[in-house]
Amino acid sequence: MTRPPFTRLLQKKWQEKKFVCIGLDQPQFSLNKKIIDLTFDLVLAYKPNSAFYEAGGVQGIKSLEKTISYIQKKCPDVAIILDAKRGDIGNTNLGYVKEAFDNLEVDAITVNPYLGKEALEPFLDRKDKGIIILVKTSNPGAGEFQDLKISGKPLYLVVAKQIAEKWNKNNNCCVVVGATYPKELKKVRQIIGDMPILIPGIGTQGGDLQATVKMGQDSNGEGIIISSSRGIIFASDPRVATLKLTNQIKSIISNLSS
Amino acid sequence: MTRPPFTRLLQKKWQEKKFVCIGLDQPQFSLNKKIIDLTFDLVLAYKPNSAFYEAGGVQGIKSLEKTISYIQKKCPDVAIILDAKRGDIGNTNLGYVKEAFDNLEVDAITVNPYLGKEALEPFLDRKDKGIIILVKTSNPGAGEFQDLKISGKPLYLVVAKQIAEKWNKNNNCCVVVGATYPKELKKVRQIIGDMPILIPGIGTQGGDLQATVKMGQDSNGEGIIISSSRGIIFASDPRVATLKLTNQIKSIISNLSS
Repeated sequence: MTRPPFTRLLQKKWQEKKFVCIGLDQPQFSLNKKIIDLTFDLVLAYKPNSAFYEAGGVQGIKSLEKTISYIQKKCPDVAIILDAKRGDIGNTNLGYVKEAFDNLEVDAITVNPYLGKEALEPFLDRKDKGIIILVKTSNPGAGEFQDLKISGKPLYLVVAKQIAEKWNKNNNCCVVVGATYPKELKKVRQIIGDMPILIPGIGTQGGDLQATVKMGQDSNGEGIIISSSRGIIFASDPRVATLKLTNQIKSIISNLSS
Repeated sequence: MTRPPFTRLLQKKWQEKKFVCIGLDQPQFSLNKKIIDLTFDLVLAYKPNSAFYEAGGVQGIKSLEKTISYIQKKCPDVAIILDAKRGDIGNTNLGYVKEAFDNLEVDAITVNPYLGKEALEPFLDRKDKGIIILVKTSNPGAGEFQDLKISGKPLYLVVAKQIAEKWNKNNNCCVVVGATYPKELKKVRQIIGDMPILIPGIGTQGGDLQATVKMGQDSNGEGIIISSSRGIIFASDPRVATLKLTNQIKSIISNLSS
């Protein structure tokens, strides 16, 4: 069954005031099923991180396949983002593209910009899929290279500018900016217009939700994919945790627009 | 069975004048077995690229496991490099580290530097493994970000300098520089001392072997891992192709030292 384009899936959920993406980072189908059953009517997207499944070897990959199939059946209108941070030379990226979009049939994938647009073309060529490029990552040491100045402008902003001006001919680019860097988030938003931003780092990593929503939202009070993993999947009640986060975001957006 | 440290595996083979690494990029065990049987006594390392195996889903991963196990039994002194170009935040990298070093038990992995040293610590902490960091990649568009100037110095050299001065406390770092950029290779070698360099891009990608060996070799006429994939695995006789490349490299090194 053909799935709608990633951006259309996002648009529909944003209209329903859904902004939360849950990171499904436990490589066990039964645990994921429980989380999905409890939250599927509340979320914008699910985001399994490939690393945790790969750590389980073949069993882990089977669990990833099963989890993705289950989401596609249970809630076909919820986007699935494979968090894989891939990036190789063009010929090789065809392998990653095949796995993500033809085998697993996810709606979007995270990729690393270091090799440049030319290498990432096999991803960017997939018009209906979301290509979510790392710009400013959430980790404490992200600045080692990302903050280095090129003619006075930090690398992460140069990356954001290239994406907005040169990589996005299919309107399928998105960026990653960590909730742990709200000032940088603001600067990225100013450069990329209404492009969607995947924002990890809320919860365990300590990102500031108020600042994140304020700096991250687009001109329509949308455009943000607020990702939480450990804060929801390890909560005593994942549905309550998802509802709480959703309501906080809605309330922040509503206060900002009033 | 515990395998010797990656650097020791390399040293032994360099002493035997072996410099060729074969990229095992066909996700079929039987094809790989044929290549290994024909070349195991000639090579420095084997390098399966994860993308091609992932493209085959669970069957592909099983084939990767089988290929790696076979190399470990057939020729335990030949290093195995998982070409995966991984890189996520620290907590997540633990998953990739587990898959590569505890499950597959490869000797080295390629990683992407964009998230910085702090994120890559789970890799760098594995003292006996080779952590091979992308510096200047072989693709035509590699320069989009890698050549941007930071206080007059291109990013790839800043990355090389950080690795040499700050990341290599366990003496387990190596770098990737494409054979398609011999001038850049020379500059990287000047910065990193005798650190091993993985050099893809010979063969199909058009890298210049003479310039690559000249610019890439370390102070002992060693230190290079010359990787060829399509040029060997699709050759009518992979053993002849490996021997030819090995002899070309030996002859270049011998001419350079005379």
